[in-house]
Amino acid sequence: MSERPLKVALLGCGVVGSEVARLMTTTGADLAARIGSPVELSGIAVRRPARARNLPVDPELFTTDARELAARPDNDVVIEVIGGIEPARSLILSAMEAGASVVTANKALLAERGAELHAAADKFGVDLYYEAAVAGAIPLLRPLRESIVGDKVERVLGIVNGTTNFILDRMDSTGAGFDEALEEATELGYAEADPTADVEGFDAAAKAAILASLAFHTKVTAADVYREGITRVTASDVASAREMGSVVKLLAICEVDKERESVTARVHPAMIPRSHPLAGVREAYNAVFVESEAAGQLMFYGPGAGGTPTASAVLGDLVAVCRNRVNGGRAPGVSAYADLRVSPMGEARTRYHISLDVDDKAGVLAQVAQIFAQQDVSIQTVRQEGRGDDARLVVSTHAASDAALSGTVEKLRAMPTVRAVASVMRVEGD
Amino acid sequence: MSERPLKVALLGCGVVGSEVARLMTTTGADLAARIGSPVELSGIAVRRPARARNLPVDPELFTTDARELAARPDNDVVIEVIGGIEPARSLILSAMEAGASVVTANKALLAERGAELHAAADKFGVDLYYEAAVAGAIPLLRPLRESIVGDKVERVLGIVNGTTNFILDRMDSTGAGFDEALEEATELGYAEADPTADVEGFDAAAKAAILASLAFHTKVTAADVYREGITRVTASDVASAREMGSVVKLLAICEVDKERESVTARVHPAMIPRSHPLAGVREAYNAVFVESEAAGQLMFYGPGAGGTPTASAVLGDLVAVCRNRVNGGRAPGVSAYADLRVSPMGEARTRYHISLDVDDKAGVLAQVAQIFAQQDVSIQTVRQEGRGDDARLVVSTHAASDAALSGTVEKLRAMPTVRAVASVMRVEGD
Repeated sequence: MSERPLKVALLGCGVVGSEVARLMTTTGADLAARIGSPVELSGIAVRRPARARNLPVDPELFTTDARELAARPDNDVVIEVIGGIEPARSLILSAMEAGASVVTANKALLAERGAELHAAADKFGVDLYYEAAVAGAIPLLRPLRESIVGDKVERVLGIVNGTTNFILDRMDSTGAGFDEALEEATELGYAEADPTADVEGFDAAAKAAILASLAFHTKVTAADVYREGITRVTASDVASAREMGSVVKLLAICEVDKERESVTARVHPAMIPRSHPLAGVREAYNAVFVESEAAGQLMFYGPGAGGTPTASAVLGDLVAVCRNRVNGGRAPGVSAYADLRVSPMGEARTRYHISLDVDDKAGVLAQVAQIFAQQDVSIQTVRQEGRGDDARLVVSTHAASDAALSGTVEKLRAMPTVRAVASVMRVEGD
Repeated sequence: MSERPLKVALLGCGVVGSEVARLMTTTGADLAARIGSPVELSGIAVRRPARARNLPVDPELFTTDARELAARPDNDVVIEVIGGIEPARSLILSAMEAGASVVTANKALLAERGAELHAAADKFGVDLYYEAAVAGAIPLLRPLRESIVGDKVERVLGIVNGTTNFILDRMDSTGAGFDEALEEATELGYAEADPTADVEGFDAAAKAAILASLAFHTKVTAADVYREGITRVTASDVASAREMGSVVKLLAICEVDKERESVTARVHPAMIPRSHPLAGVREAYNAVFVESEAAGQLMFYGPGAGGTPTASAVLGDLVAVCRNRVNGGRAPGVSAYADLRVSPMGEARTRYHISLDVDDKAGVLAQVAQIFAQQDVSIQTVRQEGRGDDARLVVSTHAASDAALSGTVEKLRAMPTVRAVASVMRVEGD
């Protein structure tokens, strides 16, 4: 075992950071054995020094000068758990320039500036690990990056946001509407006071960008990801899915189109059959399906958030980069050689489930079918329900371009005999 | 990109080996991009040269001299997919001595001689990877070895044998007996002509040894693993589980007892509740639950066998060791610093579900309860069913040492009023 302890600077000491500091301190001997060298916290950058911190660390370690701490030339590893783009980005870049490897949980930064950070890691010959950025403690990025790297990933389909899964799960099991379920999620601590990043799909979109980049060896940023949140999902949508033997989930879907050499990445609510393994992912759990040419279907499941699980992922990365440090090596960089085009959502192949409130007149079905045919969308099933004012058509389509499908919905809305488009939901998973 | 191609020797060209050769040839450009260097097959060791091989490789590559091929000093990587202890072990050792990193899918060898192989890899400064040895294509060992290495694994609970899961799944869904289900599995190619290694639990026990070694950083061999197969599982056991809202699975269970600084590893059929995620693992799929202190419950799911999925795992390892080669580094070795005692099965804490055919006389329940009390086993529930000749007691226990529980069953068998012990099954997962 090496004598000189590896120096680890911690930037940020919120929910995740304080748990990282606690685990590093309490499991120090284990960490040292696994790394082959002792590790020590050399500093903890905080915003407010005065705040009482119930942590088993030397109070001298706290500093409000994150810039100075990140750029110290004797750092072996810098852990960034501040979040957001700046100052996190500048701090990471200056840490790399000073020769430190970086472990981060910052999904927003990775999704927006991943290419820049990877390039800097290559330039300065250091490691960049970020397992905690997607799906919390679930070891997912490392397998994608390393284990199935000899295979060709075709599709990634996942539940990557715990808050929205909790809300949709509650809507499904209790029949509650979105607002009511959100309220419960907030009370139980599953949703933040401002839930926008979660319920509007921004968080999932950042993760989808990271997943697509790793899975397809190309550059995809959060801005490339089509995004629809769950705020417009109604109790009636969920009930309608239930009638079909399905459940509504907020899915992140990344696909590669080999013929057109392009990828799509999208986040939106979708109906999936209850027999699909993702349908059984309850409460705030996350799960990601990976479909690849040789390995077939793989699923990774676990807690998607929380201070301790996220800190566990950070520590796993810390061990990996420290071991590389001790061995004098460096992990293989992330390859982004493919340089594939990111197609717009309109080109994605999807299926729709559409419920229409219609006039109870002869010939309405024929008119509706005509609209689908004009848009070149093939109908899989149609069900007519009710009579008179309650007359409803429930249509499931075959796969078509999303543009053709959303165009069809627009035309349907404009039909005089269609009183309302009661529900439109994409269908995935079978 | 490096100019000199990395040389890869392939030992074995059966189901997995030929798929490895095919994938290496057809995905060569992709592999080169991901590794940062071209790779080339330098030789393929086969037992029978004359056998027609429908593979897109130069026929000159085939050789029957595995020893010569393995020991060539210009090998960068040697892939061993022959299986069994010898000559696989000697070939791997000579390959390492000649400076090659090794990728293997050989669970029997790893379970029996893992420590020796890891020591040789350390001695000669080469990599040893074996993702394909457990749970086929599922990236499981790498996460255990690397991702959650900063965490403390408490328990690994998994379905790691596809053949037995297929058989038990059929027994559950059709009510078939073991023999009938095995016959179907054989016809469909899920069971081998001699199914002993699968149905008697030898295959799962080897995998449990590998999992326990990695999870708890200690040495566990196949001989340390308690093993019971599924040949004595009856249609009545499965029906009895079904009545309890459970399903019978062959589980590999590895646990650490922190207080006594010991580990247990065992493979046996057990009832798990249908609500448990492992209960939903159907047909020949594998899934492994990992419970750890910080990360919580993680599950890894996918195809557990098959030439292509297994070859995919081999290729993932190949990319990893080739990248290390290109970067001049070496992956962190496997740490086995803990050196924990392996406790015998009798010390494992388990729960039993016991069905007894009893005489329909007053006082039988009291006698039975007395036996449990004498053995210090606490009863959770007792159900009395039927009357007269069909009188039955169904007992579920609280957790106790396996020795106390199996002792209790022995005493019950000897009771004059107990006509037969109709079913004994361990209970896991809640």
